[in-house]
Amino acid sequence: MQRPQIRQEFISPSDGNWRPSMTDKHAIQDVLSQYVRATDERDGDAQARLFADNGMIRFFGRSGTEEYQLAGEPVIGAERIRRHMKEFFPPRPERTYQHHITTDHLIRVNGAEATMNAQFLVFSSVAARKPEDGWQAPPGVKGDITLIMIGYYDSDLRKIDGVWKLTRLDVQHSLPVFMG
Amino acid sequence: MQRPQIRQEFISPSDGNWRPSMTDKHAIQDVLSQYVRATDERDGDAQARLFADNGMIRFFGRSGTEEYQLAGEPVIGAERIRRHMKEFFPPRPERTYQHHITTDHLIRVNGAEATMNAQFLVFSSVAARKPEDGWQAPPGVKGDITLIMIGYYDSDLRKIDGVWKLTRLDVQHSLPVFMG
Amino acid sequence: MQRPQIRQEFISPSDGNWRPSMTDKHAIQDVLSQYVRATDERDGDAQARLFADNGMIRFFGRSGTEEYQLAGEPVIGAERIRRHMKEFFPPRPERTYQHHITTDHLIRVNGAEATMNAQFLVFSSVAARKPEDGWQAPPGVKGDITLIMIGYYDSDLRKIDGVWKLTRLDVQHSLPVFMG
Repeated sequence: MQRPQIRQEFISPSDGNWRPSMTDKHAIQDVLSQYVRATDERDGDAQARLFADNGMIRFFGRSGTEEYQLAGEPVIGAERIRRHMKEFFPPRPERTYQHHITTDHLIRVNGAEATMNAQFLVFSSVAARKPEDGWQAPPGVKGDITLIMIGYYDSDLRKIDGVWKLTRLDVQHSLPVFMG
Repeated sequence: MQRPQIRQEFISPSDGNWRPSMTDKHAIQDVLSQYVRATDERDGDAQARLFADNGMIRFFGRSGTEEYQLAGEPVIGAERIRRHMKEFFPPRPERTYQHHITTDHLIRVNGAEATMNAQFLVFSSVAARKPEDGWQAPPGVKGDITLIMIGYYDSDLRKIDGVWKLTRLDVQHSLPVFMG
Repeated sequence: MQRPQIRQEFISPSDGNWRPSMTDKHAIQDVLSQYVRATDERDGDAQARLFADNGMIRFFGRSGTEEYQLAGEPVIGAERIRRHMKEFFPPRPERTYQHHITTDHLIRVNGAEATMNAQFLVFSSVAARKPEDGWQAPPGVKGDITLIMIGYYDSDLRKIDGVWKLTRLDVQHSLPVFMG
């Protein structure tokens, strides 16, 4: 059978169930990859752009398999999300960087609405102070890396003007969270 | 609008080589994301549903780059997999949760058969005991996170009634495994 | 040619912007998954095959958010990459394996050119020595796992004869790198 030359990403099979577009799935997962970059770069503007105008971030913690406890107030609206980065995240200590990583994305798309659940971990890398007479043996990386947070990102997204935006991002820590 | 009956996600280029369907690749990777959720939730039913009736899980360990050693008996059949979770996994210690994460999935599809190899890590998060007078400074997450296992998931899958199911899942630890 | 109404995995929409092919995105991410396998298996041949003839690997380190510092000389050309593995990577210590993992891939495709940025972590797993009278309680894995490196892989790729190859891979450590 001669197949058409253009690629088609999904069809409606005879059982009537829509299958999500692979372009949508990639675009949705991309939002989270951009979110962690914005977070690690402490870029509130970039982070806010990933949210719908009335989008929301909420933080939760829990002990073991107990109920999640809301920590602090939900951050509601792109403007508050933009400012939240400046106000809530302390300046990075010197010689320090952080990496938020995400894995195992479960993405479900229904037209212009979607959900995405992923696992996240946060690592802190602190460089050693460089000695006055330069680095000493042995060769390699100089500093310490610590795993400091772990949990799930649970989210809803909406496709607005062709671009997927977060309407809800719940940061569900797998440890209790104390806001201070 | 009438949609074509056959899925075309990819075309048959002039060189005659089939390229795997992207919908298939997403669905296959999804199986592993669901497997780790079921494992972390200690849900033997959810885990068993990801396997073909005669599906199998085997556990291996090794030291360095030596040969993998089979640890314990293979768990064969969806029913035994369902029970295996209850019998083999001890109840979680208090204040404890685990996260199995997977990365770097190499997926090869050939019609209704597929292979998937991924890296896995397992983390244990243990919440601190909450003091009687509440959490104390500093703010943040309260507890410890430990990396406890690492290795490869190597698997075969078959598409049964339109759904990808595991026929073989080898858990290849990069440390020796002692079954006790 | 009249295009069908259904979604196509890549099209040239009326705004003139090409959208990347999902097959391309999978193939590009696959290159990094294969790169980490080749690295962990110390397979210089497999690693070199992922690069264009004039491909290049460069290593960088930094402290906190300071500028990246080039560490050592760029490794230029598939032949030098093939040899680099033998010459630069010391033989694995006994009972030791390493896992390079990658996450959060941001892939942009423009025809036969692409960029890919991902996060990476490197873990070292060292098996315990097996006691003369065999492993002792408790059951489980026997050895230690340590997180030893973290950063970003930043890369360019080109599609050559239908296969995506790395033309540039920058290993951007989030710690200072001392080459010795």
